[in-house]
This record gives sequence, C-alpha cells and structure tokens, in this order.
Amino acid sequence: MTNSLSNAKMQITLTPGVGVFFYRNKMRTIFWDYDKNEVKMIDQRLLPEMFEVVSYRSHGEVARAITEMVIRGAPAIGAAAAFGLALAARESKARTPGELLADLQAAGSTLKAARPTAVNLAWAVDRMLRGATSPEAATVDELRQLILTAAQRLADEDVEINQRMATHGAELIADGDTIVHHCNTGALAAVDWGTALGVIRTAWEQGKKIHVLVDETRPRLQGARLTAWELSQYGIPYEIISDNMSGYFMRAGKVQKVFFGADRVVANGDVANKIGTYMLALAAKDNGVPAYAVVPTSTIDLSLAHGGLIPIEERSQAEVLDIQLGGEPVTPKGAKARNPAFDVTPQRLITGIVTENGVVYPPFEVNLKKFAFSA
Amino acid sequence: MTNSLSNAKMQITLTPGVGVFFYRNKMRTIFWDYDKNEVKMIDQRLLPEMFEVVSYRSHGEVARAITEMVIRGAPAIGAAAAFGLALAARESKARTPGELLADLQAAGSTLKAARPTAVNLAWAVDRMLRGATSPEAATVDELRQLILTAAQRLADEDVEINQRMATHGAELIADGDTIVHHCNTGALAAVDWGTALGVIRTAWEQGKKIHVLVDETRPRLQGARLTAWELSQYGIPYEIISDNMSGYFMRAGKVQKVFFGADRVVANGDVANKIGTYMLALAAKDNGVPAYAVVPTSTIDLSLAHGGLIPIEERSQAEVLDIQLGGEPVTPKGAKARNPAFDVTPQRLITGIVTENGVVYPPFEVNLKKFAFSA
Repeated sequence: MTNSLSNAKMQITLTPGVGVFFYRNKMRTIFWDYDKNEVKMIDQRLLPEMFEVVSYRSHGEVARAITEMVIRGAPAIGAAAAFGLALAARESKARTPGELLADLQAAGSTLKAARPTAVNLAWAVDRMLRGATSPEAATVDELRQLILTAAQRLADEDVEINQRMATHGAELIADGDTIVHHCNTGALAAVDWGTALGVIRTAWEQGKKIHVLVDETRPRLQGARLTAWELSQYGIPYEIISDNMSGYFMRAGKVQKVFFGADRVVANGDVANKIGTYMLALAAKDNGVPAYAVVPTSTIDLSLAHGGLIPIEERSQAEVLDIQLGGEPVTPKGAKARNPAFDVTPQRLITGIVTENGVVYPPFEVNLKKFAFSA
Repeated sequence: MTNSLSNAKMQITLTPGVGVFFYRNKMRTIFWDYDKNEVKMIDQRLLPEMFEVVSYRSHGEVARAITEMVIRGAPAIGAAAAFGLALAARESKARTPGELLADLQAAGSTLKAARPTAVNLAWAVDRMLRGATSPEAATVDELRQLILTAAQRLADEDVEINQRMATHGAELIADGDTIVHHCNTGALAAVDWGTALGVIRTAWEQGKKIHVLVDETRPRLQGARLTAWELSQYGIPYEIISDNMSGYFMRAGKVQKVFFGADRVVANGDVANKIGTYMLALAAKDNGVPAYAVVPTSTIDLSLAHGGLIPIEERSQAEVLDIQLGGEPVTPKGAKARNPAFDVTPQRLITGIVTENGVVYPPFEVNLKKFAFSA
C-alpha cells in the first residue's frame, strides 16, 4: 500500500517486541512540526504492519487524508481540521486579515466536507473560525500565528479532556470485568489517550484486571487492526471477535460492560457511531449488560433533536468486497455491496454517556444540556 | 489453497459469464459415483474462485472433509454422513452382516464427531444404522447394497424435502420484498436447492421481485463467498453487507423479511445456527421485521428442552485472525481470537419455522411436536 498523500515519510517497520510505541509524552496521533511548519500524523491505514508518520503542507491534503482515513476517530479528525486551517493560513496569499479570513472560511468548508457524520470536524472548524474573528488580528502574520496557537490549544485540550473522560469512565469498570469494545477509540482515534479505549486503559492502570473482547469492526477492521495493536502495546489482555459474536458471549454471561465512542450524540441521546454499534447495544440491552458511549462534549450536537437527522456517510463498496481469507479472494467477480459507515443507536439502548464533565444518565433530553454546557 | 483430502479432482476454473453452473438435474452438491463407487462433492472452500469436485473412498476422509468444511450446511453434511457409511460398508473386511454392522457403528461414531452442533449428522447416521438392522440382510454384500440404497434415498429425499420447504416458505415472501439472509443455505448447503435460500429462489422463480441483502457471515464468509455466488448464478439481485449492517437497513425501513437456516431446532423452538443469527434476529424483532428459520424436520431435536443444552462448536482462532484487506494483513502478530461457530437464537425472536410439512408458528413447544412427526 503506497500513500499518495505524503510529502515526507518517517518509516519504521514494527518488529514484535521491538520498537514498541508509547503514547503519553512520546508521540501524538497528530501534531504540528514547528521546525518544518507542517502537520504530521500517523498513517493509520498501514498499522499494525507498518508504523509510518506522514507530513502535510496544505489543507487540501489534510482533507483528503481525513476522507481516505489516514487519520480517523472523531476527536482526531477535529484536531486534523484545526491544524488544516493553520496550514490554510500559511498557504493563503491574503494581504489583509479580512482576505485571510475569507480564505480560512473556504478552507473550513473543504475540511468540513471531508467526512459528514462526525460532528467534531464541524465543531473544530467553527471554533477555529470564531477564534479567528475575535479578537481581531492587526496583521496577516498575527492572524496566522493566532490560528496556529488556537489549533495547538485545541489539540492540547483534547488530550486533557480525554484524560478527564477516562477518569470518570474508569469508575464504571470493576475489577475482573470483561468488556466488549467496538471500533478503535484509543490514542489513535484522538490526539492522545482516547475515548472508550482511554477509559479501559485508565481502569487497567488503576490496577483493575480487565479482559477486552475486541469487535473486529467490519468493514475496515479498525478493531482487529488498531485496537488490538494498541492493547498489545499497553499489555492489556484481549481477544478479537467478529462483530456478530458479541451477543453469543453476552448470552453466555461472559460480558460485564460494553464501551464505544461516538461520532455524534444528539439532543435526545441518540448516538451515531461506527456501523455495528446499534446491534451491539441491542445485544447488551437484551442481556442486561450496561452499554456506555464515551465522548468529549464537542461530539454532542444539541442542534439535532434525534438521530434520524444525522447524515450517514456511505463509503465505497470496495471496503466490503476487497477482503481475503488465507490470502484467497472471497467475493464473486461483479458482486455489489452496501457500505453505510455509521449507524444510529437509539438512546433507549444507552446506559450512560461518559463526558469530560462526568457521566450523563437518562433522561438524556434533560441531562445532556447540563453536561454539554458546564465545561 | 490445496486440498489434501482429494483422491481425484475435476477442476474447472470459473470465468465470469462462462461455465455457469446450474443445479437441478445438472450436478448435486454431493452424490455417489456409481462407476467408481466413491462419493463426490463440490469443494466449497474454493468457491467462488474455483469450481472443483473432489472424490472420497473412505468414511475417514468424509469425516475430515466435514470437519474442514469441504462440505457444510446441515442437510448437506447429513447426506455426507450417509454416503460416508456407504463407503465404510465397502471398506469393511467383515465376513458376516453382524461384523459389518459393528464396523458401521464405529464409522458412525467417527462421522458424528466430525461436527458437534448440527443435529442432521447424528440424525442421518442413526437413521442409516436403524435401516441396516431391520430388515436383516442375509449377506455382507446385501447389507452393503442396502446401505448404499438407503444413503441414496436419504439424499433424494433431501432434495424433495427442500422443494417442499421452498414452496411453503415462498408463500411468506411478497413481491418487492428486500430480504436479509445469513450464511449460506442454498443448494450448496444441501444435496440440492437449499433451505432458506431455496425459499428465496422459489419465490424468485414464481416471478416475485426480490432483493437480497447478503450477510457476509464472518468469520468464514459463507455469505460473501457462497450465497453471493449462488445468487449470481440464479440471476437474483443482491448486495453483500457486513453482518453488523443489517440493523441499519432494518431501522431505515428497507427490510421486509429475514430468512436463515438452522443447525438444530430444539423442543421449545430455540434455534442454533451460524454465529450472528442471534444478533440478526434481535435486530429484526426490534424493528418488527419477521424472522424465519427454514429447516427440514431432520434438524428438529425434540430431545433437548431448550437451546442452552445444544453443544456449540468453537473453531480455530485462525479463521478470525487470518483475514486480509486489499491484500494486506490486518491483525497484529501474536493476537488471540475467539471463534464460536454457532449461537442460539431464543424462540421469542423467531416468527416462524418453515419445514417440509408447513410453517410452524408459536407456541413452538406445542406446535413443533405436531409438525416434526406428521411427515
């Protein structure tokens, strides 16, 4: 797999037990290179086979990287959009702050369009653009600097927010729990630490013995690829299961909790998240297993009344069809597929929503408002 | 992929649009070769890339072929066990019918142990052994012939039974229905025609416009491999989805029916079937979509009171781990996995059970008994 987007590559091939990759004060999923004035991110499409950091110098490249899922995860693509705007400010030939602002608004539209479902993308762009207009910068260079500072602050806050979510969420986990986890919500899905997987990691670091059943998360297998890889880095015991198996283990009484992230939580508590979350939450409900979404408040979109209003991205058929078992192709030539990337889990299936401000419980219509604005 | 089991191969490479393979009076999934006195079956592990018929001359080879899933599907492995006993009768060096019967009983135990969950295997062996003792054969050769005749009858009956199931089941399908189908339950899963997919095929041949959403059915992807291939042969429109997507389409109101087969139906109507059926049936229930199991009465096991008593086969981790996307490996080195091959769907989620004797509706505890014995 080659990466057509990269300007520069730092390539490290991972050997088992060697070159172990640590987060927290080592390397973030996405960061600004202040020497080269470019944004760097881990190419998540290559893991776990290859650990590669790619660099981008234009907001258009960043938008494509988001669409092509070089970087994914709601918080991570929010930070990518923020740094993308910092690149746009450098790209701009504007001679006045007003002209630069117009260029930033155009770049913001491009970045927002990169993926439609996760609200963090729009949230980050809107926050950056608000910050760019008030207080007004005197010069173009001042505004460029202001934008970069704001992007860095957004990224730093993401890490801090994830840590706070993790602390709140870890209280829900008991010693000895087996947890089903969907998709990837770890350090790779955020600037660092992660949402649902961050909760699990913090509980583990508190000394709780945990076992994770990792939903492989078809079609792109972020669970089998990224979550399994992160868990192996952290030393947390896990087993990969196909997405259709979690119900079996719940019926067998082997699962105590279900944790997942979200790409958008709306006013009534409906949760848009990676495809498969709805069926997972349904199985949890049917077996009395608590199911928690873990999200920064930036993922909460109170402007939508219910989940039916959330746009759901449908991605290419190839993501479903281009699968091999034991090296052999699977699907017949000419086969067609559907590929909705997200689904909406109705709030009646959600036990609680973990945010950086605490755990929100039903009635979500009432309580989400309180938590979303108390930061 | 090489097939270590085969004695002889008839190999045909499928080219799109060429060498189209038709069932019904052309070739069965499994059949006896009366010229060579061996059993032949389509190697289902190689489809859709290669169409290959393998031949076996010993019951031990047939048992291994069942375990390794050269042949799979509850009715098909029942027929395989029957022909396996016909091979065992030829292998035996017995000098009296009594000695031969002892050899057949040993061979029956080997065949039954090949896969634990599908009851058809045990059903077929038991029926064959009962047939071998009454009426008593005068000579060893007479008993050999009697066993082969009984196996052929069992296979022929399977086709006829599937046709009857299909006729009953097709009445449940309306013109314009979109149907979610799990695993493979077509001609390949039986001697011919199939169970749930046979119902869909008959409805299609009745002129009903149908669209099938094909669950890919991880981990072995029988849906994406075999059902998609069969549907393309029959000209029935379909799209492949990953197993975690069916709930999305049901919530969107796009699905009118769910059909699947079963490996064992027990006295209270609980259904053991391919892993993922439980979560699919749960999503159907949550959305008011009728969910039907389609089974020959040989799949009904009234000796077990409820599904918790059904043995569930757990297969190798490699089936989950050895997956590639776009030619690239997915899971980290050293990753572990779980692989239960079946789950139990509680009867409360089942709308009806289609048998060759008609559609059984709740209360299943009462009605299954009537249908199972009215043949």
